[in-house]
Amino acid sequence: MVVTPQSMHFEPPLALQSGASIRDYRLAFETYGTLNADGTNAVLVCHALNASHHVAGVYAGQDKSEGWWDNMIGPGKPVDTDRFFVIGVNNLGSCFGSTGPGDINPDTGRVYGADFPVVTVEDWVNAQALLLDRLGIRRLAAVMGGSLGGMQALSWTLQYPDRVGHAVVVASAPNLTAENIAFNEVARRAIVTDPDFHGGHFYAQGVIPKRGLRIARMIGHITYLSDDVMNEKFGRQLREAVADSVTGYRYTTQDIEFQIESYLRYQGDKFSEYFDANTYLLITRALDYFDPARAHGGNLTTALQRATCKFLLVSFTTDWRFSPRRSREIVKALLDNRRDVSYAEIDAPHGHDAFLLDDGRYMGIMRAYFAGIARTLGATT
Amino acid sequence: MVVTPQSMHFEPPLALQSGASIRDYRLAFETYGTLNADGTNAVLVCHALNASHHVAGVYAGQDKSEGWWDNMIGPGKPVDTDRFFVIGVNNLGSCFGSTGPGDINPDTGRVYGADFPVVTVEDWVNAQALLLDRLGIRRLAAVMGGSLGGMQALSWTLQYPDRVGHAVVVASAPNLTAENIAFNEVARRAIVTDPDFHGGHFYAQGVIPKRGLRIARMIGHITYLSDDVMNEKFGRQLREAVADSVTGYRYTTQDIEFQIESYLRYQGDKFSEYFDANTYLLITRALDYFDPARAHGGNLTTALQRATCKFLLVSFTTDWRFSPRRSREIVKALLDNRRDVSYAEIDAPHGHDAFLLDDGRYMGIMRAYFAGIARTLGATT
Repeated sequence: MVVTPQSMHFEPPLALQSGASIRDYRLAFETYGTLNADGTNAVLVCHALNASHHVAGVYAGQDKSEGWWDNMIGPGKPVDTDRFFVIGVNNLGSCFGSTGPGDINPDTGRVYGADFPVVTVEDWVNAQALLLDRLGIRRLAAVMGGSLGGMQALSWTLQYPDRVGHAVVVASAPNLTAENIAFNEVARRAIVTDPDFHGGHFYAQGVIPKRGLRIARMIGHITYLSDDVMNEKFGRQLREAVADSVTGYRYTTQDIEFQIESYLRYQGDKFSEYFDANTYLLITRALDYFDPARAHGGNLTTALQRATCKFLLVSFTTDWRFSPRRSREIVKALLDNRRDVSYAEIDAPHGHDAFLLDDGRYMGIMRAYFAGIARTLGATT
Repeated sequence: MVVTPQSMHFEPPLALQSGASIRDYRLAFETYGTLNADGTNAVLVCHALNASHHVAGVYAGQDKSEGWWDNMIGPGKPVDTDRFFVIGVNNLGSCFGSTGPGDINPDTGRVYGADFPVVTVEDWVNAQALLLDRLGIRRLAAVMGGSLGGMQALSWTLQYPDRVGHAVVVASAPNLTAENIAFNEVARRAIVTDPDFHGGHFYAQGVIPKRGLRIARMIGHITYLSDDVMNEKFGRQLREAVADSVTGYRYTTQDIEFQIESYLRYQGDKFSEYFDANTYLLITRALDYFDPARAHGGNLTTALQRATCKFLLVSFTTDWRFSPRRSREIVKALLDNRRDVSYAEIDAPHGHDAFLLDDGRYMGIMRAYFAGIARTLGATT
């Protein structure tokens, strides 16, 4: 499936949760499949920290340009683009095409940098709704996402309950724990205290806070994987064992000794080449802030009363960042409200990353759930 | 109990595991209690990453100068200094009194800095043994430690099996997992890539890589605590909620919003004021390298054949850095060798930090075990 990114410009100011607003912004998006005549087969896919509107397919002439959820979405795939019209949107504040900190602030004529307004999951959902308006989509057959994307899917059911038929919330949580916030904060501190960050206005200096971005990404990678899968993939393997040595160690504190170090440094380097530092701050903050129960005295059941759609929740046993326990909190709150909820807890070894990987049971459940939605639309099965 | 630090100088070179050696070094230590006439009541306490020879008691005229295991060791305490002669030693390469990277290299006349030789758990044990020789202690009633200190206690039983009566190994592991190494590596990268690190020779520049040390310490703190105890202590509490606001959020990416952020920043700042950056690299590397089974093809049972003493192992259910599973590996390998092993798995909420905290069951087990040792020495009960 060859796909083409698109962009939509919005002139009127969007009021943000913080009280600030943003005007003259654009949203990058992609669509796959065809919207049916009555406009009922649309599926919105929300992305997590590091992803974008490029959800599925490849770009013409670009090898290895598969979208980040290409195993899930496409012709004949679990979310079948022969049946559904799928939309991926890059969120405001990101760095992959939608307006973000690297763009010009129309109020000042200078790059936003650290002055880009703080955006929340709720703000993203509002912006996504405006895009759907423009695309002529009144109601979604489904909204779906994993991790931070799952938070957006959940928020859709609260902000626009009459515009969502199904919400598919994968490897997500009703809010972050203190430990999650802590990891985000360390990553942010690494970026902000990098001398090349310049208070978030590094663009004008011609530098990038790569040191901080590397550290942030390394921390991220540790938390995306399970202890077990790290042991299986890397264990205590050395990158290059010294021959004729009992231990094989090189005895170095600054050079790479273990394979896991090599892997993390590589991931950090790669990330620092393309990801925007201010975007990293904004997106981790959106994660920290999401907490629909907060306005209801911490009562998630009350908070989820507004949601009227049907739900599929999926979690993965070894995901310690968004553990099954957190998904079960959402399931319980929905059941307290007598909502229609399916829940699958997948016994997978890969930790949080599992939501992006191929697992027969996981894919099977998603396929069956979306086939069920397709049947209610009267699409061919 | 008022205590006084001491120091011992060693002139002859100490051969290190790496092949390098170190000469003209000193070891800072403290002792509590009295060595009995036949020299059989000595207990060596080994320290972990951030601690020192100041294990128990207070310094004269210094409020709040309690040693790091003062709840465990002292007159009438579980390790009763009315019965035992307890020794705490600061390890080589540390920054609390023993020779370390901030000292002058006698070969060059310049500060060691990054040229301080890589030291291992085995090297530390060898140095500790030399100190015991000087103190006239042929055999230890017990060697004990938590975390990295537990690794040293275990290594004593392999390097000097005839010099140890009991080994008490708390919240430890037979080696680090890939995830543990990964956290250490991120911390090291934060330090090494701090522009103020200057390749480890920052002393001459009059600067300290505080940014890196802060990040390292913040990561450490997250891994020392359990998710549950973090939620209980900090949860999603804001440092200063905005009045007349549904969420109370200030909406900021760089300033403190949540209490957990405030806590971590404070811990990071404090640590960066006193801890040496090169020491941090050395000690985390010693953790990474410890792996007695490595020389035996990964077979821990074979590796532990040399150990002949009696063992007490203790782990804590919520410790995800040195989980009970890792302690059980040691227990199993010792039982395979038909050694005398006691094992306690304490249901404590505090994560890895639990080994330093008061817990009735934990303290009770330690008290009973050391009372048993004392009885075999003929000490009064």
